[in-house]
Amino acid sequence: MMKIDVLTLFPRMFEGPMGESIIGKAVEKNLLEINVSNFRDHSDNKHQSVDDYPYGGGAGMLLKVQPIFDNLRRIEEASPEIKKRVILLDPAGKRFDQKMAEEFSEEEHLIFICGHYEGYDERIRSLVTDEVSLGDYVLTGGELGAMVMIDATVRLLPDVLGNKLSAQTDSHSTGLLEHPQYTRPAEFNGMNVPEVLTNGNHKLIAEWQLKESLRRTYLRRPDMLETLELDDEMKKFLAEIIKEEKSPSE
Amino acid sequence: MMKIDVLTLFPRMFEGPMGESIIGKAVEKNLLEINVSNFRDHSDNKHQSVDDYPYGGGAGMLLKVQPIFDNLRRIEEASPEIKKRVILLDPAGKRFDQKMAEEFSEEEHLIFICGHYEGYDERIRSLVTDEVSLGDYVLTGGELGAMVMIDATVRLLPDVLGNKLSAQTDSHSTGLLEHPQYTRPAEFNGMNVPEVLTNGNHKLIAEWQLKESLRRTYLRRPDMLETLELDDEMKKFLAEIIKEEKSPSE
Repeated sequence: MMKIDVLTLFPRMFEGPMGESIIGKAVEKNLLEINVSNFRDHSDNKHQSVDDYPYGGGAGMLLKVQPIFDNLRRIEEASPEIKKRVILLDPAGKRFDQKMAEEFSEEEHLIFICGHYEGYDERIRSLVTDEVSLGDYVLTGGELGAMVMIDATVRLLPDVLGNKLSAQTDSHSTGLLEHPQYTRPAEFNGMNVPEVLTNGNHKLIAEWQLKESLRRTYLRRPDMLETLELDDEMKKFLAEIIKEEKSPSE
Repeated sequence: MMKIDVLTLFPRMFEGPMGESIIGKAVEKNLLEINVSNFRDHSDNKHQSVDDYPYGGGAGMLLKVQPIFDNLRRIEEASPEIKKRVILLDPAGKRFDQKMAEEFSEEEHLIFICGHYEGYDERIRSLVTDEVSLGDYVLTGGELGAMVMIDATVRLLPDVLGNKLSAQTDSHSTGLLEHPQYTRPAEFNGMNVPEVLTNGNHKLIAEWQLKESLRRTYLRRPDMLETLELDDEMKKFLAEIIKEEKSPSE
């Protein structure tokens, strides 16, 4: 069973998402144990303060090293035999991606530290194994980032998703964006399902799907094609697509 | 006042994060109105189904166009005079970044549609203005992505953050990663605050901070330096950093 600890000043933020999502299901199935702790409870200060002014001046307050240090020590003491991956949510960290989610899903025990925009005392970084950023944008705190990383990781654990779903081809796991998909009705408000998908010729359907996957990737994320090895069929389709997109009237 | 609508099958996921975070504070201050609706309530099917099998076969179910179409129409009818930005959360979409958050924060009314990994009927895309992805990773649903985008957007609204905080230099808004920061105590577990920060020379402190911002950016995100215009002082520091990092023993 995977263990996840989250260190945060806002434990209540996790209540809704944890219960409703895949994370809640994994906990129910005993595939995951998750503990959310408030590192304010570990402050040795009588006012339970967790932040203080920065040395050298500057706006905003910084998170102090002591409460997080003691919270981590408590977790470590409870299971010293288990190797832990300690992840600091930080905009200056390495950008989270699917490969990192796969790596995290192989670990026994993940610990996420959620900070706030004011920033960390630099010495907190010496307590962690990873500094990770969700993307190139500024968030109020690390909580939503931790939830995203937990969701992306937990859905990769064996038995969390049903077979039917895990077998599925997801964008970003095949290397191509997904082709357009349609369900009933065949006509809605003047918008129709492409005919090829409705006449039951599986070879033509597979070709159409591959070509439209390539087209969407070519139009939206050409960078993804650079690292992909194309077979002969894909090369042929891609040549057609480039021609079609250059002269859409033909 | 900004208006945000969220269309989701899991409205309860939003409860914790909405109340506790900056989003809850913005609602309290009457700077934001947020409505979370379940598009299942708009299904015209007697079983309230929202998904169906894909045309042409394939694993997984797709979200149908009708419930989302009718939910959007209801929102549009309630305020036809207001221009709306309709955002579909999708891994094949444009990657969310700080510039997009800034753009969203200028809008009057944002609508987020949260799907699930099974995918959308393609015709749903014709109902939206934007298709946006949180990053190159696979999530169970769009809910966490919508929360992240709402957080990044709402904190940019006037008066949401206090003055002290909004004036602050955030990573990704100055073009450089933030320099290391320290708060009390000066010594913790053998780890010390750099001396320059403790002796009160503001010119030296500012130089140290700029140089260490550049160093962190150079080491972790050299791509960010490519698009930045460097002044003479920055160029000098960068040359020093490159030399120092090449021969750390000097």
